[in-house]
Amino acid sequence: MSDGSHSPSHSDVLTPDDESTDTMSDNPQLSPEQSVSPKVAKRVEFLEELQKEFEAVQAEFFEERSQLMAKYEKLYEPIFNKRYEIVNGIKDVEDTDEADQVTEENSEKGIPKFWLTAMKANEKLAELITEDDEGALQYLEDIKCRLEDSKAFKLGFFFSANPYFRNSVLEKTYMVDKVGSVSVKAEGTEIEWLPGKCLTVKVLQMMPRKRSSSDIDNKPLTNTEKCESFFNFFNPPLVQDEDDEDDAPIEEIQKDYELGCVIRDQIIPQAVSWFKGECTDADFFDL
Amino acid sequence: MSDGSHSPSHSDVLTPDDESTDTMSDNPQLSPEQSVSPKVAKRVEFLEELQKEFEAVQAEFFEERSQLMAKYEKLYEPIFNKRYEIVNGIKDVEDTDEADQVTEENSEKGIPKFWLTAMKANEKLAELITEDDEGALQYLEDIKCRLEDSKAFKLGFFFSANPYFRNSVLEKTYMVDKVGSVSVKAEGTEIEWLPGKCLTVKVLQMMPRKRSSSDIDNKPLTNTEKCESFFNFFNPPLVQDEDDEDDAPIEEIQKDYELGCVIRDQIIPQAVSWFKGECTDADFFDL
Repeated sequence: MSDGSHSPSHSDVLTPDDESTDTMSDNPQLSPEQSVSPKVAKRVEFLEELQKEFEAVQAEFFEERSQLMAKYEKLYEPIFNKRYEIVNGIKDVEDTDEADQVTEENSEKGIPKFWLTAMKANEKLAELITEDDEGALQYLEDIKCRLEDSKAFKLGFFFSANPYFRNSVLEKTYMVDKVGSVSVKAEGTEIEWLPGKCLTVKVLQMMPRKRSSSDIDNKPLTNTEKCESFFNFFNPPLVQDEDDEDDAPIEEIQKDYELGCVIRDQIIPQAVSWFKGECTDADFFDL
Repeated sequence: MSDGSHSPSHSDVLTPDDESTDTMSDNPQLSPEQSVSPKVAKRVEFLEELQKEFEAVQAEFFEERSQLMAKYEKLYEPIFNKRYEIVNGIKDVEDTDEADQVTEENSEKGIPKFWLTAMKANEKLAELITEDDEGALQYLEDIKCRLEDSKAFKLGFFFSANPYFRNSVLEKTYMVDKVGSVSVKAEGTEIEWLPGKCLTVKVLQMMPRKRSSSDIDNKPLTNTEKCESFFNFFNPPLVQDEDDEDDAPIEEIQKDYELGCVIRDQIIPQAVSWFKGECTDADFFDL
């Protein structure tokens, strides 16, 4: 870091570079704690103009970075499409072993439970997947990630027709801050569960009290309560109000965002390594 | 996400694209849990080749992204250098108000306690800064971030001569995973504290027991213990051994990495907004 850029220059007076500095004579809105002399206040104002200059250049960086990511997203797509076809038996790899073809003629298509197995190999995801979830997740045919713009990405979970819900795609969109390191909001698809198949609520059955002989309908009453399920992933925690002093929600949002990043950065690109059990969470801490 | 890329194609047989597929007949190293029929195993092998294809394209992406970041780092540098000069009184803004110049001739240079004030405005950093630390941090002249390569960035804290330590720069280097979302290792400068000035240990004084009259040296014994201080930032937690079952260290590493990201992404680019108390941690959750 000793690049010599800190050596003083020959001129001792700086003038702002751009026109917006007409406002430099305004009094900056310093809080009482930050109150400073008029001379220092002028310097602070100058720094604010510099920060605007920085932000203009940084905006160009974000734009160029978005374009770069979009370009590579297109290059990745055909590779991921081939994977999709193999996993779901739409195409098969070449097989010259005739004996195999005869004896296994009626064997399974594609790679059964590919995505379920890959996800269960990841510790953070495995924690969320209940035994009941596994029934539904074996219908998962693909997971894709798409950039919406520089400030959002969308995960899509593609399902074949299944006895659990009507949706063929469950989506989760993460809106991020401009640097891309913090999730500011997440939204998920509302799942259209088939009757009695909802995995995110538990149905409690209670016998009604006999109130009077006029009660015609003496069927058991039912009540529901939320329960643990991977599918809660599509009903993410709401963004905390900034005046709210309880900081648990921010932690929940961060945890939910981490899950999204695990799926985007680890599961989607390296699904087969997870499937084979070769990846572990610890691998991502190796140099 | 309904881009039609999931529609089956006309051909039902895929052949691998590259030469490395000579190894396709090898038996994949599936764990007992993942054991599958030979036909499925062939498909898994095919996916492994596809993953290698993906990784080759992704490596190009990381290279291009590094270049882009380096290009913008150069564009940001002159802006940050101007800020440095104003903050430390090496240059001053133009001042046509003669009265001010006379009355404030002997007033403070630059913007006193600029970086200390900016850092204290951030909740996560404020938690770490003790009253004693403030004494040393008022000598902080600049904070810079430099990319080392695509897998590391270095934060540099530049200090003027001070009564606390000999170093003029304290550095912290974060090595990150290839995606850049996880810290794999962090290293910091060893601080050369001046005698009796170390802020990261507390000196405990104890009177020695009188053992015998032959004890010539009856001075109080001293003992030291680690204490809270921002300067512990330069002595980061070690990477956890992957066989270690205790997961506290990974959380510590993540917390330490978050601090580095706060400094890199929030404090350095927007220091004046933090100084003015206009930024809050919650701002980074706003859309």
